[in-house]
Formats: sequence, structure tokens, C-alpha cells
Amino acid sequence: MASPQILIQLDSDPHPSVFDAVVAIDSGIDHLLQYGQVEPTNVRALVHGAMFTRGPAQLASTAIFIGGSNVTLGEAIAAEVAQAFFGPVRVSVMLDGNGSSTTAAAAVLCAARHVELSTLDALVLGGTGPVGQRVARLLVKAGAKVRLASRDAARAELACQQLSGQVDVGANQLLAVGTSDAGVLQQQLSQASAVFGCGAAGAQLLSQQQLSQASELKVAIDLNAVPPEGLEGIAATDKAVARGGRLDYGAIGVGGLKMKIHRESIRTLFSRNDLVLDAEQIFEIGRQLESATTV
Amino acid sequence: MASPQILIQLDSDPHPSVFDAVVAIDSGIDHLLQYGQVEPTNVRALVHGAMFTRGPAQLASTAIFIGGSNVTLGEAIAAEVAQAFFGPVRVSVMLDGNGSSTTAAAAVLCAARHVELSTLDALVLGGTGPVGQRVARLLVKAGAKVRLASRDAARAELACQQLSGQVDVGANQLLAVGTSDAGVLQQQLSQASAVFGCGAAGAQLLSQQQLSQASELKVAIDLNAVPPEGLEGIAATDKAVARGGRLDYGAIGVGGLKMKIHRESIRTLFSRNDLVLDAEQIFEIGRQLESATTV
Amino acid sequence: MASPQILIQLDSDPHPSVFDAVVAIDSGIDHLLQYGQVEPTNVRALVHGAMFTRGPAQLASTAIFIGGSNVTLGEAIAAEVAQAFFGPVRVSVMLDGNGSSTTAAAAVLCAARHVELSTLDALVLGGTGPVGQRVARLLVKAGAKVRLASRDAARAELACQQLSGQVDVGANQLLAVGTSDAGVLQQQLSQASAVFGCGAAGAQLLSQQQLSQASELKVAIDLNAVPPEGLEGIAATDKAVARGGRLDYGAIGVGGLKMKIHRESIRTLFSRNDLVLDAEQIFEIGRQLESATTV
Repeated sequence: MASPQILIQLDSDPHPSVFDAVVAIDSGIDHLLQYGQVEPTNVRALVHGAMFTRGPAQLASTAIFIGGSNVTLGEAIAAEVAQAFFGPVRVSVMLDGNGSSTTAAAAVLCAARHVELSTLDALVLGGTGPVGQRVARLLVKAGAKVRLASRDAARAELACQQLSGQVDVGANQLLAVGTSDAGVLQQQLSQASAVFGCGAAGAQLLSQQQLSQASELKVAIDLNAVPPEGLEGIAATDKAVARGGRLDYGAIGVGGLKMKIHRESIRTLFSRNDLVLDAEQIFEIGRQLESATTV
Repeated sequence: MASPQILIQLDSDPHPSVFDAVVAIDSGIDHLLQYGQVEPTNVRALVHGAMFTRGPAQLASTAIFIGGSNVTLGEAIAAEVAQAFFGPVRVSVMLDGNGSSTTAAAAVLCAARHVELSTLDALVLGGTGPVGQRVARLLVKAGAKVRLASRDAARAELACQQLSGQVDVGANQLLAVGTSDAGVLQQQLSQASAVFGCGAAGAQLLSQQQLSQASELKVAIDLNAVPPEGLEGIAATDKAVARGGRLDYGAIGVGGLKMKIHRESIRTLFSRNDLVLDAEQIFEIGRQLESATTV
Repeated sequence: MASPQILIQLDSDPHPSVFDAVVAIDSGIDHLLQYGQVEPTNVRALVHGAMFTRGPAQLASTAIFIGGSNVTLGEAIAAEVAQAFFGPVRVSVMLDGNGSSTTAAAAVLCAARHVELSTLDALVLGGTGPVGQRVARLLVKAGAKVRLASRDAARAELACQQLSGQVDVGANQLLAVGTSDAGVLQQQLSQASAVFGCGAAGAQLLSQQQLSQASELKVAIDLNAVPPEGLEGIAATDKAVARGGRLDYGAIGVGGLKMKIHRESIRTLFSRNDLVLDAEQIFEIGRQLESATTV
């Protein structure tokens, strides 16, 4: 008989995310163990408790979810979790701090419904944040040209360098863009066939006028759910809404797919004991969901 | 298929109440998410996690319970929870800090087994505390005359003013009583047909002699479970015990009904996604339980 | 209908043990309530919540597990838990801080597979630590001669005095041994028919040469799971491995039985509402498991 499915939620915030907890339960797990205020230095004993309590045949029924609003801290926790494993004595792990992996995967897959990613020319606004970095990474891996934009050109440049260290980047495939100069921004936007708004809540990234002048745009996706809109004129509930030759998505419009990907990723954790689900793996899970839906 | 029932326990104490947790489980919920050290300032993200994880048809399967020994802090948390909702995107909420709502409802309903509330003349001792305030509120709403008593007459007066701001109070229906003067206390008691002992643990509110001189009393209810007795001579386990023309209840005698009301209130939370169960609503749930039992 | 089985995990560490949580779930409980940072001073309200929420017939479905890496603190918590009970209004309790009771029971029972405990002459290295003290206690109660060893002779002496206060000790049955002198250690070892390595992680207690010179040894058990080995040459996975006339066990070799005992102890908690499972009771549960397995 299979052991009960246990998900261990490691969260760096004082109170572990209710959001992640409810999604985990709705994925069908049997027991959730919630841990808040997790730091890289106190991960080891928790992970050993996951590793040494079940035999090899049952280890796939225990898994770890790493969340929390501080995505960088989540990555440090994930590194410690990986260090705590002994060879095959390990459990599967999902990394989705602040929903950044599932959100990025869903946003890119929404675009992929309408355009071919390998020929896309994408402007990623807020490209230095956790979601923006992941959107850029997924797009680069899919063969798209990516203009990674930030108000601060130096930060955009740094994010591009980091990205080049993580994935193979083709010549002219990745471009750092500083958007503090409106002319530069408009020029970059005019060449893009897709734009992703990945900025922090409360910051408008593009005005309606800027958007309307971008004649090459086929898809515009605004991941900001809190007013004001990141891409002015795109409502949070927009889901493939046609506007001036574009198809627009808002945060809630992307959210349905994000939730499906999140739940399916949790379920996937329990299929083996050695998975590490980061943005790329989560994107692949989403792609399979999309193709199953289409067929 | 209905989603699993998830109760989110928000508690301002360092360790969320075991009592509330066990009652919740015995009400039949599927998953309990316990949060301690909750403050009004950190409620919003937790509530959003409850709101944005399930579709409209499933929102009734998520609910929030607000407890904790600090009842005032619980009320502040409840106010923040209400602020966090967006129109119909909400979940049901129960407010029962330190068991004050369920205890007050049970105490008043125990009295109602023997006397008509609308013609009752009730002395509420410890009337400025969380349970006393709720007992007074429920009695006033039921049409009873209420003598709200405290050692400190000024605090009793203040509590009456607050109560008048919350519910409709008829002329001469609510009276503030300072009990530091034994003569005043005895005079008030002599006119009462019911007395409720709602004081803090460890404080005797009435001596056996004072009680025996109160010839109009039909019901006496002592909600203090820790020795010494709040109303001397009434045992914690008393349940409609006849003594000198009165029927007496102690804390444990009231407790059976309190537990039934608590459990039924939790179950009621999951019937809709927009309930707010405070003392009045919990009292109404208790009244229906009582009438179902009687019939 | 039986109430759902609720285990309340009281742990003095900031994050309650994942290990204990997974074992509890695998024992078949329905709900786990995890409490970290538990101190003796804040136990009472938690225990009262366990006592006062269910009727006498259902109290056996609630139980308390006391864990945490600080075994002494766990014992202080257990004392407070016992104080909080009122006569028959109580729930069953298991005390297994840092796994010390289940580990000690399993180690002694592994030895008992091969030697008669009542005629054993046992050297307990690291005998002043939580596991070592429990191994010594169980052995003394079973009639074995015990040489309780520590680097610090005074600490060994103190541990023997404490042990004499807890259980009946026969004449010459218990001997304190200081091991800082290699000659003394070798002489003690040469008389022992069993040796238990119960030292802290990372400390070698005996070299391979010292072990090989101990010609009376029938069983050697090393409870250290972290390199270097406590008893050099005994691998963590050893399970009755024959070496020079001895049968050797390592921590993982003992671990299978430890896990079985831990799970069965949790299940036993829910058979009554008045059990206190400390090392002796857990040892007895293990002994029954062993005899059931043998038959």
C-alpha cells in the first residue's frame, strides 16, 4: 500500500503561504507540514527528517515545496536542501518562491498559444525581478529573442550576464535594455512581437499610448494584479482579448493556467523521489498540460 | 466534486489554541492550517491566499477561524480580514476569541431553557469582560433588562455606552452597576431574575449568603471553571441543579452546549462563502440547535 | 463512531521535527498538530485544550508526543504535561526527545536477539548522554551488569547515582567508568560481553585495534550515524554482521527496528487515554514486536 503523500512546505516568511498551502491540498496531498521562518542554516535537520523516515519504495510519497516572498532566499534554501541529500536517499523538490516559476511558465505558455516562441522577439519589462528573470530564461531556452529591460540599464546588463551563465544564449539573442529613456523604450518596443510586464506591483511600465504605437505586437501580457495596471489598458481579467491587432492577457487571465500548472507540478512531485522542479521543469509540465488540452 | 474543507486558524497567541483545533477537527473539516502570532498587520497576505486559490463554486470550502486569548486583538484581526476581501471574492469567517462568543451564546441559551428572555431582569457580573459584554449584548437584543456590573462603576458605564452604540437599547433596558459597594450590589441582585457570573478566573463575585438573599432569582449561571467559584456554592458541573428556588449552572454544565454550538458553527462556515459568525450569529445557530433538541 | 486520531507534537526546537511528524503520519494518525518552541511554562493551555475538548469515551483519540533535540527540556515539558492533567481527565503521552527512547530500546533489543540480557556484562560508552542513560537504564532493569562510561569519570559517577535513584540496582550491577585513561578503558572492555557506542556524533569511542582485543565481546552496537564511526570498523548499515566472534550493528542496522518501535508506540498511544510511554514502556512495546516477529 502506498504511504500517505506528505508535502513539506518550507517558507522563509514568518507565516508560511496560505496560497501555496491551499493549492497543495487541492493537488490531492494527504498531509501538509508547514514550516515558516525557514533559513538556509536550519534546513538540514528538516530535510534529513524527510529522507530517513521512509524506505526507498516509499520516498516518492514525501516531497518538499520551497516558497516564500523572498525568492532569492528560497533559492538559497533550495541549495541547502540539495546539499542535505545523500545520493539516491532524497525526495523530490519544487521551487516556486512567490509563485515566480509557475507564473513565468504560465505567462510564456499563454504567449505560445498565439505565436511561435522560436521566432518571437520579446520585450520583458521588469526583467530583473524573479518573474521577469524566469520569463526571460524560458524564452531564451525556447529560442526567442529577448530584450531584457529594467529602468536601470546596469541591472538589466547584470541580469543578462547571469542568464548567459545559466543557459545557452545565441548571438544577438539577448539584449539588455535600460528603459529610463522613453525614446529607447519606444524603439525597443516597436521591434517586439510580444511584451511581458513583470514589474513590481503598483508600477506602470507602459502607457496606453506607448502600447498603441507598438505596431509589431501580437501578444501583450501584464502580470501585475494590483492597480494601477502595469501595461495601461490591459485589465487583470483579460484573457486573449483582441485590441488593435494584439491579444492581451492580464494577471487573472494568466492565473487559471498558473493554478493548473502549480497543482500538476505538486502532483508530479509524487511520481518519483528525485525530481527538482524549477522554472524549466515546471514550464515543461505546463507545456504538456497545454498540449493535452489542445488535443 | 466538492473541494476539501480547509479551516485557517488565525490566532494571536504564540501557539494557536489546541482547544480550537480539536473542535475544528471534530466538526469534520479535512485540513486545518494553524497560524500563531497573527497580528492585524500581517493578515492581508494570508487572507488573499484563501481568496485567490479556489473558484467561486469552491470558495465555500475554505473558511477562517479567528481565536486567541486576546479577544480585542482578535476583533482587530477580524476587521483586517474584512478589509482584505474584494466584494464577492471572500470566504466565511468565525470570530470566537478565547471562546467568548460560543460561551456567551451557550450561557444565555441555558437561561432561556427556564425563563423567557424578553421579560428577564438579568444581572451580568464581570460585564466588562469579553464574555460579559457578549452575554449583555445577546440579552439586550433578546429584549431582556440588563444590569451590567463591574467593580469599577466607570468601566461599567463605558461598557454600557459601547453596547448602546452596537445594538438598539430601549429606555431603562440597560443599567450600569458598580459593585464595590456591597449594599448596591445586594440591592441590584434582589431585583434580578437571573444572574450571570462572567468574571475573571479566581475571583469570587457573590458569596453563598448574597445569593441566598436574592429571592427573585430563577437562574444563576457561573462561567468560571477555575476554583474558587465565581458564584459561591455553584459547582462547575452543575447543570440545572435546583437550589432554593433557583436553577444553577456551572461552567462545565454550560460547556456541553458550548461545544455543540462551536462545532455546529464551524460546520455552518462551510455552507456559504460570505458568512461572518460573531456572537449574534453564533447565538442564532445555538438557538436552532436548542429548538431541534427540544422538538 | 470513533473520533479522528489527533496527535499533538510538542517540540522545544524552533521547527518541530519532520522526522517525528512523518513517523506519526505513517503510524496512521488522522491529524497532526505541530507546535515548536514549546517551553515548560507554556504547556498548560495546550494540554488543557487536549483534555477539555472530547468526552471520556473519545479522549483516547487525542494524544501528545514530546520531542525535540534538547532531551532534558523534553523531560521538563513532560513533567508540566503531567501536572496539567486532572485525575482521569487526561490523554496519553509519549516522550522521545531526539529519538532517545526509541533508539535505546531498539539497541538493547538488537543485543537481546543474540545474548541473554540478564547475564550480560555491558559497557555503555557515551553513557551520560540521553541515549546512553536510557540504554543503561533498560539494561539494569533487565538484570544486566552495566559499566557506564564517559571520558569524564565524575560525570559517569553522577549518571550512575541518578540511575540508582530511578531504578533498583543490585550490588556490583552498576559501575562508573572514566575512559580518559586508555588502560582503564581497555581493561573494562576486556570484561564486557557487549559494547554500546552512544557517544555524540563525530567522536570515535573505540579504535579497530581496541575492539579486536576485546575477546569476550559477543555484540557491538554503534549508534552513531555520522562519520567517523563511533566504533571503528562498524559500518552504519551493519546488521548482525559477524566479525571476529562478534555480531556488529550500526545505526542504520538498528534503525529499522527503531522505526517499527516508534510507529507501534504511536499506535499504542491511541489504545487508552492514560498511558505515559517513556523508555521502559517503549522498550516493552519493542519486546512484544520482537517476540511477534520471532514466532
